[in-house]
Amino acid sequence: MAASPLVPFVDPESPVFRAHEGGKLGVHATKPLRDRDDLSLLYTPGVAEVSLAIAADPSLSSRYTARGNTVAVISDGTAVLGLGDIGPLGAMPVMEGKAVLFKHFAGIDAVPVVMETGTVDELVEAIARIAPSYGGINLEDISAPRCFDIEEQLKDRLDIPVFHDDQHGTAIVVLAGLLNSMRVLDRRLPEQRVVVSGAGAAGVAVTKLLQRAGVRDVVVCDSRGIIAPSRQDLTGHKSRLAASTNPRGLSGRISTALTGADVYIGVSGGTVPEDEVALMAPGGMVFALANPTPEVHPDVAHRHAAIVATGRSDFPNQINNVLAFPGIFRGALDSGAPRITEAMKLAAAHAIADLVEEPSVECIVPSVFQEGVADAVASAVVALARSGR
Amino acid sequence: MAASPLVPFVDPESPVFRAHEGGKLGVHATKPLRDRDDLSLLYTPGVAEVSLAIAADPSLSSRYTARGNTVAVISDGTAVLGLGDIGPLGAMPVMEGKAVLFKHFAGIDAVPVVMETGTVDELVEAIARIAPSYGGINLEDISAPRCFDIEEQLKDRLDIPVFHDDQHGTAIVVLAGLLNSMRVLDRRLPEQRVVVSGAGAAGVAVTKLLQRAGVRDVVVCDSRGIIAPSRQDLTGHKSRLAASTNPRGLSGRISTALTGADVYIGVSGGTVPEDEVALMAPGGMVFALANPTPEVHPDVAHRHAAIVATGRSDFPNQINNVLAFPGIFRGALDSGAPRITEAMKLAAAHAIADLVEEPSVECIVPSVFQEGVADAVASAVVALARSGR
Repeated sequence: MAASPLVPFVDPESPVFRAHEGGKLGVHATKPLRDRDDLSLLYTPGVAEVSLAIAADPSLSSRYTARGNTVAVISDGTAVLGLGDIGPLGAMPVMEGKAVLFKHFAGIDAVPVVMETGTVDELVEAIARIAPSYGGINLEDISAPRCFDIEEQLKDRLDIPVFHDDQHGTAIVVLAGLLNSMRVLDRRLPEQRVVVSGAGAAGVAVTKLLQRAGVRDVVVCDSRGIIAPSRQDLTGHKSRLAASTNPRGLSGRISTALTGADVYIGVSGGTVPEDEVALMAPGGMVFALANPTPEVHPDVAHRHAAIVATGRSDFPNQINNVLAFPGIFRGALDSGAPRITEAMKLAAAHAIADLVEEPSVECIVPSVFQEGVADAVASAVVALARSGR
Repeated sequence: MAASPLVPFVDPESPVFRAHEGGKLGVHATKPLRDRDDLSLLYTPGVAEVSLAIAADPSLSSRYTARGNTVAVISDGTAVLGLGDIGPLGAMPVMEGKAVLFKHFAGIDAVPVVMETGTVDELVEAIARIAPSYGGINLEDISAPRCFDIEEQLKDRLDIPVFHDDQHGTAIVVLAGLLNSMRVLDRRLPEQRVVVSGAGAAGVAVTKLLQRAGVRDVVVCDSRGIIAPSRQDLTGHKSRLAASTNPRGLSGRISTALTGADVYIGVSGGTVPEDEVALMAPGGMVFALANPTPEVHPDVAHRHAAIVATGRSDFPNQINNVLAFPGIFRGALDSGAPRITEAMKLAAAHAIADLVEEPSVECIVPSVFQEGVADAVASAVVALARSGR
């Protein structure tokens, strides 16, 4: 079948399109349906007994339906990977891929739900309405700043975990990498000067989690420069960032923030030129996480920094959310935790960092395929859930 | 684990609860994830190419995501089986069971979506918003009269099939049974006098489909008696029924309608006493479809009718929706039909009827487990879709 002239990208014989033929997910029955007796157990009339029991005691639904092991991967397709607003249908292959990762790494049955976009209220209403179907909700690729309010409102309304992975998954793995960087470089986290480039979903969450982990000096930059109370153009989450970060009261371009900084964390999708990286304090850390093109090439970054991390699998130190979210949800589902707390995120970062037995400049986080990562993260989450944190 | 005293029904060791332990559905990857190369095909960076292609040409989503074989089984739990309004969590075991049937009989990946109930507009909004996730929507166990408006509005808004199985699945299999009853009794459908007891989802749909199939004399009864223009208490769908049925202008109790009737179709959940069944014309048909207790016991019905059908598997002539919906959706997905048309429903009924090689009073419809039922129904649907009907 020839590619449509409207769609110059499609080569049905290419490995990528062949890997997507028919999609990447299937649904299967976990109980046998062989004959009328099975049918009368799995469906009418037998099922009525189970339905009535759950209606009388809703807590039974986790045990007697698949809901207890099911997470919805929900997106409106407005901020997909580095591709931007490509709509719900375009987002679906990414959500299916995410569901594959949930299953592979944590045995979780994840179902993609892609939605027509809308206002914060419209999306919250729709998601809250279908929430009884799931044991947890993983929000994905929803554009900032809507993603912040959507997540907060859903967390308030629902009694199941709601987790925007672009925010918190990234933040957890960044923190894990920084924790091990401290070990490698024999430094202390609270004393680091950190520049976060990007004030979107990931930038905001990274900033908050680093602060919770004890970092005192975080300066956040957006495309217009340093986020500071002196800026007149800030509203919403950026004005809150201005109030809670930047303790030295810097203003101006990112180069000002980078001067003497110990850590650069790029989650912007932009670029940072070598002469600005060179302004950093010697022997520091560059996390250039834009995908597929890091804000600064690792080879260039290494001329000025001791430790370099990217989002890519073909360089050392891949900061990949898949180290976090499968275990986070495994732990939440196993413990019945109604929410993912800040304490759980911190504990998850420590659990991931601790899996690297001998951290080095080329190994600050485990490999994506290292055994036991999700188990370790899940155990950390379960322990906190059991202690009510 | 002992059953909670709040839930006297739960015996975890009983066959039904054991069959539901952990739920009845799972999600699996259909493509291998063995190493980084697979990861880069199924997820970033490879997936970006597929997402962009679909964003440019949405028709590709059926080919390159699982959506093309996925149907949502959606309920708000307001009219579950014979149990009534038991809520979304209580409805889930039924929806999972339905999904098991979709897979078993038609290879369709069905995902349950149970929703908090609300107004017609609220449910339509939520369902329309998540509709891009699916290749078709099976509405289930939504109370009348809301189910009529919800289905109609969704059909107008969406370009994927929307099918309320409680209405149309029942109607299709009832018609199939009547078609073969005509062969067995050597009668003609247009000449039959039909009484439909019940003016809910199933009653309305059965009435409409029988009329389309040529039946001229249908009298519908609700709990207050015959639906007729003389009734002052009718609104909405019941006043429309009053205008479109009951050509002899009957009024009063159901016994008046049954006097001389050829066919009784019970979809009411009520009962009909023997002395009223005895009013029917000799040698007729009684379809007593209430579950688990038919409106009249088959043994009693047989004293007055030549052919008796129920919804139960332990009597002959089980009128079971599973004969229809798997093939209906299989055909719609395979043909890319944007809707299930009236012509498709008629053709499905004929296809089901034709699978009984030698109809008899004890065999007017195929067994649920007869091979080839879904294929035959799907072929009928595909043929009509290809001819634009």
